[in-house]
Amino acid sequence: MINITLPDGSVRQYDKGITSMQIAQSISEGLARNVLAAEVDGAVWDASRPIEQDASVKLLTWTNDEGKATFWHSSAHLMAEALEALYPGTKFGIGPAIETGFYYDVDFGDRTFAQEDFKKIEDKMLELAKTKAEYIRKPVSKDEAVAYFTDKGDEYKLDLIKDLPDGSITFYSQGNFTDLCRGPHIPNTGFIKAVKLMNVAGAYWRGDESRKQLTRIYAVTFPKAGELAEYLNMLEEAKKRDHRKLGKELELFAFSEKVGMGLPLWLPKGTALRERLVNFLQRAQVAAGYEQVITPHIGHKNLYVTSGHYEKYGKDSFQPIQTPQEGEEFFLKPMNCPHHCEIYKTKPRSYKDLPVRFAEFGTVYRYEQSGELHGLTRVRGFTQDDAHLFCRPDQVKEEFKKVIDLVLYVFNALGFQDYVAQVSLRDPENKAKYIGTDENWQLAETAIIEAAEEKGLRTVIELGEAAFYGPKLDFMVKDALGRKWQLGTIQVDYNLPERFELEYTGSDNQKHRPVMIHRAPFGSLERFVAVLIEHCAGNFPLWLSPEQYVILPISEKYEDYAKKLSQMLNNSDIRGLIDFRDEKIGRKIRDAEVKKIPYMLIVGEKEAAEGTLSVRKHGTGDLGSMSIEDFKQQLIKEITI
Amino acid sequence: MINITLPDGSVRQYDKGITSMQIAQSISEGLARNVLAAEVDGAVWDASRPIEQDASVKLLTWTNDEGKATFWHSSAHLMAEALEALYPGTKFGIGPAIETGFYYDVDFGDRTFAQEDFKKIEDKMLELAKTKAEYIRKPVSKDEAVAYFTDKGDEYKLDLIKDLPDGSITFYSQGNFTDLCRGPHIPNTGFIKAVKLMNVAGAYWRGDESRKQLTRIYAVTFPKAGELAEYLNMLEEAKKRDHRKLGKELELFAFSEKVGMGLPLWLPKGTALRERLVNFLQRAQVAAGYEQVITPHIGHKNLYVTSGHYEKYGKDSFQPIQTPQEGEEFFLKPMNCPHHCEIYKTKPRSYKDLPVRFAEFGTVYRYEQSGELHGLTRVRGFTQDDAHLFCRPDQVKEEFKKVIDLVLYVFNALGFQDYVAQVSLRDPENKAKYIGTDENWQLAETAIIEAAEEKGLRTVIELGEAAFYGPKLDFMVKDALGRKWQLGTIQVDYNLPERFELEYTGSDNQKHRPVMIHRAPFGSLERFVAVLIEHCAGNFPLWLSPEQYVILPISEKYEDYAKKLSQMLNNSDIRGLIDFRDEKIGRKIRDAEVKKIPYMLIVGEKEAAEGTLSVRKHGTGDLGSMSIEDFKQQLIKEITI
Repeated sequence: MINITLPDGSVRQYDKGITSMQIAQSISEGLARNVLAAEVDGAVWDASRPIEQDASVKLLTWTNDEGKATFWHSSAHLMAEALEALYPGTKFGIGPAIETGFYYDVDFGDRTFAQEDFKKIEDKMLELAKTKAEYIRKPVSKDEAVAYFTDKGDEYKLDLIKDLPDGSITFYSQGNFTDLCRGPHIPNTGFIKAVKLMNVAGAYWRGDESRKQLTRIYAVTFPKAGELAEYLNMLEEAKKRDHRKLGKELELFAFSEKVGMGLPLWLPKGTALRERLVNFLQRAQVAAGYEQVITPHIGHKNLYVTSGHYEKYGKDSFQPIQTPQEGEEFFLKPMNCPHHCEIYKTKPRSYKDLPVRFAEFGTVYRYEQSGELHGLTRVRGFTQDDAHLFCRPDQVKEEFKKVIDLVLYVFNALGFQDYVAQVSLRDPENKAKYIGTDENWQLAETAIIEAAEEKGLRTVIELGEAAFYGPKLDFMVKDALGRKWQLGTIQVDYNLPERFELEYTGSDNQKHRPVMIHRAPFGSLERFVAVLIEHCAGNFPLWLSPEQYVILPISEKYEDYAKKLSQMLNNSDIRGLIDFRDEKIGRKIRDAEVKKIPYMLIVGEKEAAEGTLSVRKHGTGDLGSMSIEDFKQQLIKEITI
Repeated sequence: MINITLPDGSVRQYDKGITSMQIAQSISEGLARNVLAAEVDGAVWDASRPIEQDASVKLLTWTNDEGKATFWHSSAHLMAEALEALYPGTKFGIGPAIETGFYYDVDFGDRTFAQEDFKKIEDKMLELAKTKAEYIRKPVSKDEAVAYFTDKGDEYKLDLIKDLPDGSITFYSQGNFTDLCRGPHIPNTGFIKAVKLMNVAGAYWRGDESRKQLTRIYAVTFPKAGELAEYLNMLEEAKKRDHRKLGKELELFAFSEKVGMGLPLWLPKGTALRERLVNFLQRAQVAAGYEQVITPHIGHKNLYVTSGHYEKYGKDSFQPIQTPQEGEEFFLKPMNCPHHCEIYKTKPRSYKDLPVRFAEFGTVYRYEQSGELHGLTRVRGFTQDDAHLFCRPDQVKEEFKKVIDLVLYVFNALGFQDYVAQVSLRDPENKAKYIGTDENWQLAETAIIEAAEEKGLRTVIELGEAAFYGPKLDFMVKDALGRKWQLGTIQVDYNLPERFELEYTGSDNQKHRPVMIHRAPFGSLERFVAVLIEHCAGNFPLWLSPEQYVILPISEKYEDYAKKLSQMLNNSDIRGLIDFRDEKIGRKIRDAEVKKIPYMLIVGEKEAAEGTLSVRKHGTGDLGSMSIEDFKQQLIKEITI
């Protein structure tokens, strides 16, 4: 008998050689129907693989990232089987799962392959899936492996095998298809109920431009037909919400080739939106005891020698800025922390002064490859809502709690409700690779875990994911389309205080090192605005909207009333504009809807005579007639965060 | 007879060969006593030089910059005479007038020279001045000049003569001293009534480090003894007000060698002050129809090729930033205009849309030599309160008037009351060197002059001082110590719209070029804050003060009352702090005075019982007891700009 520990901590006894699938069956038939694979002592295994000794077992289903990855990897094998059946002689490169499905790189020989072939392949895959063919694992010797693929004439697999040590090689077969594969796989092809080929692209074998270009086929599969439909809807919706498209339509930002790729120009409406976000956070920060500072966008080489960034400075970065003075080099700053350390050092600090919290909306520059640039999410210059907290070791927990409060305040004001706190701790097996004393690490890790707990956060703990300089907490946020974004980070740092020799005088009159905490609730303003645009489809919370209303006079005759109305709203800090154009009211409404202006206020004879307005809300429709005062009060209520 | 035109436009007839001094005497004896030199057809002449043909003549006195420069240049000759008398064998380099007096570079041979010698030289100069020796001009041939200085053994003068063409050389003599000199000079040494040697420094001959180092003696002279005393007082006061000293004491900004010289770090209090200035101007700009934009701090080479900056880019600048991509170069932006041109181009503009006004508090970087760096006034990175107005040619005057309003609003809010508008126009003799049509220049120049006139500005017109790309208006401001600063600039630009091919569609449905106006009321935030600190000696206007009050509890017992009071003031947006330290009240007051906190609120038993406070104003003293409400109202009144 062996002991199997389940994720809830319970221990069950089974015969040696039991499989994860059998364990699932022993718990419930329903569970067993959904099990795709299992994590055995931290490694993902086939559900059918016998367990020979005591182990921790976590059953994986479609709801786990690892379960999904296994499902898609198995789907890649299914697609390969279909391709081989339809196009004999096809050779195969690699076929991994990716974040949004899977792909396979294939060599069709002389055959040209096009989007028109998609349907045929999808049908074939579904036909093969219905056979419920099992995925069978088979360890093979290197000679056997070479013999098999030599016989098949697949030079790509042979190229892969070449690099594998004998004794480590396994084959997986399902139906008529056998692949070189480390696994694991789902029990059988019957789990795959919906299939969609997404697109094709060229991909050089092993990413080497001097070698052959293969055809990369991207696809996605699901265990239920309904989920595919949902997924395709989501993609359609994501396209409509693409921040690059909306950013242009709403005139928020632009790019110019002359200024340089990846360097956003914030247009007036985007700037106003961004400044509203900045002011909002700044007010909250002042209330939380932060002090704003401003530092230059460049720094002398010496600063980065001290911080340690200099030695990591690569040829793939923005290069140093030379000057006429020999040996004098400046760098575009890639982060604000070294500058803030120098501010900390401008005067002596006592234990009573701590924590000090320096905040800066600091624009930093990093060289991203041009192919990786993407709207506002991957740029070469971005503004961090950065702050550095310098505190005593005993203050870490309290500071973490305050920062969590701030992050949640931000998420709440901007409509992000679905998030998990990911706590990254040291690898307990390998403490030597981290800087800082054992005592301080224990203090900080406990502090973070307790802070997250006391704040009632849903938490995932990741061992070994801490940076070498300290543990951290990241907020993983789901947007309205269910996509995950890392927004908001809080990091402990023992490294920079050491390198910059930061000090404070303790109550013992001795010098001590402060602990440094980096934190950014938005992360970067550019990326945050991009995520926000896609999350709310450009329909910003009213307090953030570039224009909160537009007044639409039915005709020229009511312009004076429109102006009076506008003045009254402006006086209450409600911002908007008047559409003075000589256009039909229907056209004016349509244009306002496109611009996503939250409130359209139609004024004509009746309204001017009664001192009212006819209100239309974007995305909702007609709200009827209202007095000016009632409308004002309703807006003020909606605006208040 | 010849016609002499005076600055008021009147024309007088005189005999050919009349001197400016004689012209002065013909007007009034009092005037003649003050005439130092004269501007004859735009060139400065000795007052004793005969005028041989019709000319415009402007008599120069101590109140003109040119008169002052002549006075100081003549004083340099006087100092040389004194040095030669005291230290025979002294050789002389050059001895020009500078902004704050004059210097002479001299070679004392083996003699060491020190500050102790100052008094002796001053006395000698005054003794020589009393002889009222005339400055006599004498044209000499190159051979004569060489012979004279060869005989005297002065290799420096010989070195200078070497480069002069024959026929252009003049000597000036007064008393026993003769110098190689282009002139002009004041009538005689008797005008010089007060003398002060300021300091000595080393200076390489002709600025060449491989040549001999001479002794540079700085000095200043005045036509009245009282003016010297005033000047020395002013210097003493300027030292106390030095923004580098006050900036440190008030914890406004700091520099760090690691971050780099000339790159200010704005500390929390300085940042708060700066942001208050920014918000103040931003509010005024929004009301004036400006739109804020944000652009990156770097730009691609192509941007500067288009703007024309690329070709002017020198080896004495920050060098381009290389990247891994061949031929891809970025530059730290030296100004914001090219970026704003690209924003203008993001959509088509119609004549009805103009003017558009893009404002940005844009940080720019320029490489200043390390020796030229000075606190916040000469830095390598600074933030301009920049804006670019794109308008139709017929809108230039109206836009200028609006910008003048804005600049005066700023000056008024910050206590600058003494200023002159300097209007720089084309050289009418040399129109070819300017870009833009003759018609547009005439339109713009007339517009600027009329705008300045209609706004009632004191104006000085400078012909030929316009930039090649357009005319401009600069505000020359006098600070509390009488020092002049150029603050606030408005410039017309025909060049960039051309280079960037900016367009708008006119009412004629044709494409036209907009006119661009650059303007910056502060100029640079760094320099403006420096001037402001020195102007108000760190006693900022109340609305700008980092802390408006400090509450000083007599003892621990009154802390609760202090906190309540602070809360009430904070609720009215009055900012300040409480001095909780366990110190005597006298010490607390002294410390608050050093920090220049405008209001000290002392609270003890009586105040807590009565709900009052005892008010002390910085620089004024005790204001007596006040109710909280009265104090609040008084502050709010004072804060309102």
